[in-house]
Amino acid sequence: MLKQRLALLAFPLLIAAAPHDAEKLRDAALKDTIAWDIVEDLTTEIGPRLAGTEAEARARAWAVARLKAMGFANVRVEEFDMPVWVRGEERAEITGVNPQPLALTALGNSGATPPQGIEAEVIAFDSVAELTAAPAERLRGRIVFVTHRMNKAQDGASYSYFGPVRRLAPSIASQKGAAAIVIRSLGTDSHRFPHTGNQSWTDGAQPIPAAALSNPDADQLERLVKRGKPVRMRLVLTPRQTGIGKSGNVIAEVPGTDPRAGIVLIGGHLDSWDLGTGAIDDGAGVAITAAAAKRIMDAGRPKRTIRLVWFGAEEVGVRGGDAYRSRHSGEPHALASESDFGADRIWRVDFALPPAAKPIADRVEAALAPLGIARSSVQARGGPDVGALVASGVPAVTLQQDGTDYFDLHHTHDDTLDKIDHKKLAQNVAAWTAMLAVVANAPEPLVGEAAQSLPK
Amino acid sequence: MLKQRLALLAFPLLIAAAPHDAEKLRDAALKDTIAWDIVEDLTTEIGPRLAGTEAEARARAWAVARLKAMGFANVRVEEFDMPVWVRGEERAEITGVNPQPLALTALGNSGATPPQGIEAEVIAFDSVAELTAAPAERLRGRIVFVTHRMNKAQDGASYSYFGPVRRLAPSIASQKGAAAIVIRSLGTDSHRFPHTGNQSWTDGAQPIPAAALSNPDADQLERLVKRGKPVRMRLVLTPRQTGIGKSGNVIAEVPGTDPRAGIVLIGGHLDSWDLGTGAIDDGAGVAITAAAAKRIMDAGRPKRTIRLVWFGAEEVGVRGGDAYRSRHSGEPHALASESDFGADRIWRVDFALPPAAKPIADRVEAALAPLGIARSSVQARGGPDVGALVASGVPAVTLQQDGTDYFDLHHTHDDTLDKIDHKKLAQNVAAWTAMLAVVANAPEPLVGEAAQSLPK
Repeated sequence: MLKQRLALLAFPLLIAAAPHDAEKLRDAALKDTIAWDIVEDLTTEIGPRLAGTEAEARARAWAVARLKAMGFANVRVEEFDMPVWVRGEERAEITGVNPQPLALTALGNSGATPPQGIEAEVIAFDSVAELTAAPAERLRGRIVFVTHRMNKAQDGASYSYFGPVRRLAPSIASQKGAAAIVIRSLGTDSHRFPHTGNQSWTDGAQPIPAAALSNPDADQLERLVKRGKPVRMRLVLTPRQTGIGKSGNVIAEVPGTDPRAGIVLIGGHLDSWDLGTGAIDDGAGVAITAAAAKRIMDAGRPKRTIRLVWFGAEEVGVRGGDAYRSRHSGEPHALASESDFGADRIWRVDFALPPAAKPIADRVEAALAPLGIARSSVQARGGPDVGALVASGVPAVTLQQDGTDYFDLHHTHDDTLDKIDHKKLAQNVAAWTAMLAVVANAPEPLVGEAAQSLPK
Repeated sequence: MLKQRLALLAFPLLIAAAPHDAEKLRDAALKDTIAWDIVEDLTTEIGPRLAGTEAEARARAWAVARLKAMGFANVRVEEFDMPVWVRGEERAEITGVNPQPLALTALGNSGATPPQGIEAEVIAFDSVAELTAAPAERLRGRIVFVTHRMNKAQDGASYSYFGPVRRLAPSIASQKGAAAIVIRSLGTDSHRFPHTGNQSWTDGAQPIPAAALSNPDADQLERLVKRGKPVRMRLVLTPRQTGIGKSGNVIAEVPGTDPRAGIVLIGGHLDSWDLGTGAIDDGAGVAITAAAAKRIMDAGRPKRTIRLVWFGAEEVGVRGGDAYRSRHSGEPHALASESDFGADRIWRVDFALPPAAKPIADRVEAALAPLGIARSSVQARGGPDVGALVASGVPAVTLQQDGTDYFDLHHTHDDTLDKIDHKKLAQNVAAWTAMLAVVANAPEPLVGEAAQSLPK
């Protein structure tokens, strides 16, 4: 009995001596089930959670209870106001001699048709450049169709490159007098799931109905257009702006021993598009980062405070990231890093650190290499909600997930729990845990000197 | 000039001597584009073509024009009457503390909810056997959910085995007083496409709303049920019976030189479910068989008449097959074979031939082996629309397509042209062409003696 008591007393002392062995924590995390449990509960009990809606509010309440139950400190919600857009009916069909329905979905901030819809001739463009070059009189009163040839890319490069099809083409079509616009989805699958996503009306463009066709439907429309006969489409889209609503960031902390060493900010976004249940975007990200923070917390108190943020309203304009920055940018951030690129394996690590912190990168590299993760010379950008902080000089480590298949599911009805692989999810947790173990305890200073990319 | 004329004269004689070299026709067909053009045009210009609707009538008109243009003889439509069921609205959502939408679609002949829908508690069963064993008072007024564990099978065996979940469970649930039934789709994918399909109300069961959930949605409902709290569902399904409509079989022929040698009946079904564009089910089948018949026709006149039938209304109860049999079963059929299992490679050939015709099987086997097709000892059943003819003794050769992935797409919105692989489609045409070259010209008698399975 006495022996047992001594053992219990000794244990905390041992922890305090070397609480965060990155290799041991990493290897233990390869059997992680914490992340799976979080993403399963979030996607099952809440499901879709569009920013600013009652569903996102339910997700925040769920999150607060969950994070408290996990033992995090300072669990709280920081609310903010935002304009809310919600989907309505969405239907389209080819009319005339080849009548048939098409699968599409409204893009964020899409205007609405009348309830009975509109019908107009389709005018097709192969690119945003072709649309930009077209004289307005060709578009007036028509339904513009813009296609593209996005392909798979491990680092997501094709999403950035083809992004203007969704982000700019609607405003251009509106300014040229089009009645509506449909685009080929920004997606790399060949399933009849249209991919929604945000867009804003720029340069005074008036909202018009704007939607994405699934890739097979875009193929079909291309084939019909190529047959050379006029193609007419009937379109019913009835989304609406519902005014100002509430979103919020859910924050939890693992308090550090040295307040001057700065805050290690990690997280993902809690909101999702309304079509799927937001499993890979971004249930996985909130789950991975929370599981890693929990593993560090359970191993002992780190030097730096780890601040976990589950951002609100990322999908509709990075509103949670903006709100966080407005409120917290004056605080000392040692690092900022978000997980928001699915649930596939981490394959690469990027850094943006002050030159004096180069040894940190070397130690992170060494801790990650056994997971098959390669160090790059690309400058880390940190992720959407922390990107502005990182651009302003906050250090970042980006754990790049394999995005090859990410845009098969992104922003579709098909973003559901079954798409997450247990082992890949655990590999993510292992990488995040190892990275946090190094960064949160590193003796090198991380606050006060601007970060930059580090030569390998 | 004279020499040229002699050559022209000599050509038909050479053809008559050996017009149908199975190996040469087979190898040429591996570059087939006829089938692709047919299925592309059918799925693009007509799209979905539900039995008994105006879309199926448009498909028949398209088919007649197409088959005439291809040079077939005796192109005609044989119409028949049928009761028509059409889909309406279909929506479902979990209500209560975990509110969220579910993706589902009505099964054929589903009853309707009121326009505003119904809401009831869900009662879940793991199998039809468990449903059958349940006392009626547990089901009364509830929404029954029946799940299963269908897996992929190359020969489609799992579809037959789990078929009662769709075909029988709705009637059982109705007879026990359930308000509605939702089943896990008979599908092997993990995408949010529900799989529709036919079912009939048996033993006096009154129609109730009956629908299939996509597999991810069935997963979600299972998870919610397992959490142990009551799960309530709101269901809106408004399909309706529209009365008696017209369907029809489209028939085209390659006239043979010997009327007494019997008819070689081949084809697929022209109707499709209304959700997708019916590319693999069964645009591929009509295209493959037509392309093969065309290749035989272009090579010279066969001994036996090849009769190509594009059946109507297969999906809703093999009505085209029944209509054909009523009208034509008295005619001498040398063979009956349908292509209706997708567009993947043919991997196996089954026979049902009179014993005296065994040499035909040997020659077909030899012609198919270079395509990677293995002869089986399974008795050929011919395919859905010709199955009753074959069961009554008409010989059959079944070219079995690889069905491993067939039920990923079967009866879903996702059955579209992009799912067909050009090379695999051509392999099908090659196999059919080789089989026809042998069977249509075989000297062995095929009419008048009952077919049976042949030992290898």
